[in-house]
Amino acid sequence: MNMPHAACKLLTVICEAGLENDLLRDLERLGATGYTITDARGRGARGVRNAAWSESANIRVEVLCSEPTAEAIVQRLKQRYYANYAMVLFMADVAVLRVEKF
Amino acid sequence: MNMPHAACKLLTVICEAGLENDLLRDLERLGATGYTITDARGRGARGVRNAAWSESANIRVEVLCSEPTAEAIVQRLKQRYYANYAMVLFMADVAVLRVEKF
Amino acid sequence: MNMPHAACKLLTVICEAGLENDLLRDLERLGATGYTITDARGRGARGVRNAAWSESANIRVEVLCSEPTAEAIVQRLKQRYYANYAMVLFMADVAVLRVEKF
Repeated sequence: MNMPHAACKLLTVICEAGLENDLLRDLERLGATGYTITDARGRGARGVRNAAWSESANIRVEVLCSEPTAEAIVQRLKQRYYANYAMVLFMADVAVLRVEKF
Repeated sequence: MNMPHAACKLLTVICEAGLENDLLRDLERLGATGYTITDARGRGARGVRNAAWSESANIRVEVLCSEPTAEAIVQRLKQRYYANYAMVLFMADVAVLRVEKF
Repeated sequence: MNMPHAACKLLTVICEAGLENDLLRDLERLGATGYTITDARGRGARGVRNAAWSESANIRVEVLCSEPTAEAIVQRLKQRYYANYAMVLFMADVAVLRVEKF
C-alpha cells in the first residue's frame, strides 16, 4: 500500500448492552483513544438475544489500538467479566489511514 | 500475540432484512454457534436501500466460525439465495480471544 | 480456501452522521459499487458522541473495493474532510465470496 498508514489492531467486543458504561470506563482507563458502538442483537452461548427486548440487547464495540493496549484490554475484560457475562472478543489486523489520530 | 486465542474466520453476510429468520435457521443448522446482527442500509447491485423504508432495510450478520463451517454456510447461501436476492458475503481472518466459547 | 473468491479491501469510514449524503456522493463518484451504513456512536479525538443526540450521531460506512479504488477514496476524503471533521478510516483484507458482484 502506497498510502501513509499505521498497522493497528481492531478489537471488537460483543456483550450485553447493560455493560456499556462499565466497559467504556475500562477502555478509557486502559488507553483506548476512541471507540465506536453499534447496537446489535444475536445468539451466543446464552441463547437468542433480541434488540427489541431492552434487557437482552447487545452492543458491538470497536477499538482501534496498538497490540499492547489490546492485550491490556483483553486481560482486564477477562478478569472482570468472563465469569459472569456473555462476552465475545476478537481481534483483526487493520491499516489505519488517518495516522495522526493514533 | 502472547494471549491465548483461536484463529477463526469472521464471515459477514449483508442482505435484505426480510431474510433474517430463514438465514438464521440456516446458520444454526450448519453449525454456527453464535451470530451478531446489526440493522443497516446501503446501496448495492440493486440500488439504494434505506433503513427508514422497512421493505428495503438490510441486515449485517457476523458469524465467527471455523473455515469448514464458513465454507458450508457459503455453499448453502449460494444455492438458496444468490439467484433471487441481493446478498454480499465476505470473510476475514480474526483471532478470537475467548477461546473456550468456540 | 477452496471456494471461488476475490481478494478485496474492506474500507471502513467512521464519521459524523451529517456527512452521509456528501460522503456517499463521493464514494459513488470514485467507483464504489456498493456500501453498507450502520448508525453508531462513539468517542474519538473530539469527545464523547451519543447516538441519542442527533447532532452528534456517527455513521459507520463499509465499502468493499479494489485497492486502487480504496486509495482514491482515501485521497479524496483526506482532502475534503480531514481538516474540519472527525473521521476515522481503516482498511482490512477480506475474501469476497460473491465474486460476480465485484
